[in-house]
Amino acid sequence: MALILGVDPGSRKTGYGIIHQQAGRSTYVASGVIRMGELLSLPERLKVIFDSLNEIIALHMPAQFAIEQVFMAKNPSSALKLGQARGAAIVAANFHNLPVFEYEARKVKQSVVGTGAADKSQVQHMVKTLLKLPVSPQEDAADALAVAICHANSHQLLVRMASARQFRRGRVV
Amino acid sequence: MALILGVDPGSRKTGYGIIHQQAGRSTYVASGVIRMGELLSLPERLKVIFDSLNEIIALHMPAQFAIEQVFMAKNPSSALKLGQARGAAIVAANFHNLPVFEYEARKVKQSVVGTGAADKSQVQHMVKTLLKLPVSPQEDAADALAVAICHANSHQLLVRMASARQFRRGRVV
Repeated sequence: MALILGVDPGSRKTGYGIIHQQAGRSTYVASGVIRMGELLSLPERLKVIFDSLNEIIALHMPAQFAIEQVFMAKNPSSALKLGQARGAAIVAANFHNLPVFEYEARKVKQSVVGTGAADKSQVQHMVKTLLKLPVSPQEDAADALAVAICHANSHQLLVRMASARQFRRGRVV
Repeated sequence: MALILGVDPGSRKTGYGIIHQQAGRSTYVASGVIRMGELLSLPERLKVIFDSLNEIIALHMPAQFAIEQVFMAKNPSSALKLGQARGAAIVAANFHNLPVFEYEARKVKQSVVGTGAADKSQVQHMVKTLLKLPVSPQEDAADALAVAICHANSHQLLVRMASARQFRRGRVV
């Protein structure tokens, strides 16, 4: 399996994290936080998200894109801001023909920490531990790495399930 | 002044409208509704919006992009959907280096109908009348043409105000 790009979008800060998944092991490749200047207009912020993710995708050439699925935000105003940032990030993935995978926040936490009710510092700590990092990544970068890890685990599970099914059917595709 | 592209984004239907503004007169160029198939996933819908607007911009080469500004949506769920569609549309404008202008819904209605409390059928009727169309455009296309007309009026006003100021200062730039 190849590189996975995880993204945690936001209109002020957008986290990204890239991991390499092979033979059931996730290794760290890169991560960071795209920061939008406070004086930027909304269209300018969306441009920064799209252009930055474009550069990151062109540089690392991930094969898959994972992002948190949002069903409900705190209020309409923050939902609108989050939606716009999320839209810009997904369009960047589409632009490079990356398949997009969405995971609920609870599933991401469950996958990384072991409980869907984990807080942000627990996610940071477990991302550091799982990827053998010398220090905890910044909060938004950790959330982005967490969704990439969640996808790696889920994808691996799917591949295993598919292999098992194929084995039971007595054929290998 | 050149062509203005107005967009009314939505995750199921996104309206667009192009007008030509010259010497204080708006003329109709094109309009339509981009429809997302009901079976499409969210990332696929955003791809349809981005790709369709890309094609429309490449075909007509508008100079400016106008979109309704949204401060408050009905509820967090619809705000998130609208935000994502809006993000994809604005990224398409950014991608072609079009300047993006945002107008409040009340201002669009005020500009086209004469009252900020106008309903959708009044907007459709006035867009038909102002652009001398043989029939009323579809609702989403009418809303997109309305925001383009609103921008044409505002921009024109700005240009007039700037000319008046320059005249008072006794210079022509």
